[in-house]
Amino acid sequence: MVAPLTTEQRTDALASLPHWIYDAHRRAFYRRILLKDFSAAIGLMMRVALEAEKADHHPEWTNVYNKLDIWLTTHDAGDVSERDVNLAKVIDALV
Amino acid sequence: MVAPLTTEQRTDALASLPHWIYDAHRRAFYRRILLKDFSAAIGLMMRVALEAEKADHHPEWTNVYNKLDIWLTTHDAGDVSERDVNLAKVIDALV
Repeated sequence: MVAPLTTEQRTDALASLPHWIYDAHRRAFYRRILLKDFSAAIGLMMRVALEAEKADHHPEWTNVYNKLDIWLTTHDAGDVSERDVNLAKVIDALV
Repeated sequence: MVAPLTTEQRTDALASLPHWIYDAHRRAFYRRILLKDFSAAIGLMMRVALEAEKADHHPEWTNVYNKLDIWLTTHDAGDVSERDVNLAKVIDALV
């Protein structure tokens, strides 16, 4: 069981993650990334996938050509948790 | 410019693509694929990505852990075209 972030913790986390917003409907952190083309988008997805698998925490994502929409949430917590903060930071470092 | 399939052509195409349905809202062929886990889903996405790039025709897709939802449509045609039929066949062969 993973604890969800409190509203205050979530606000603090987003302050350090300027590319992410909180999607209240999906109870997830959300970021859209626009890449150069499909190849670049898939390349980024692969690099994120390796890190996600290593952390055993996986994104929900949609790719359309050069566009990548990512949602991070923790199903065990029913909302975002520290695990999503960590994965968001990993993704930001890879972009 | 790519011609969209006529309704009859689309019906014929789907008869040979039993895993796919026509998503009228998105004017796209749609298939959901359930894999063993995230690694398997990403592996399939990579194999599809290589073929898509080769054909210069790309899927719209969403991945959540072991689940992969794929929509195929041709923006130049404003609907599905022969290119989507071909990519659907390629995907089916890779699954």
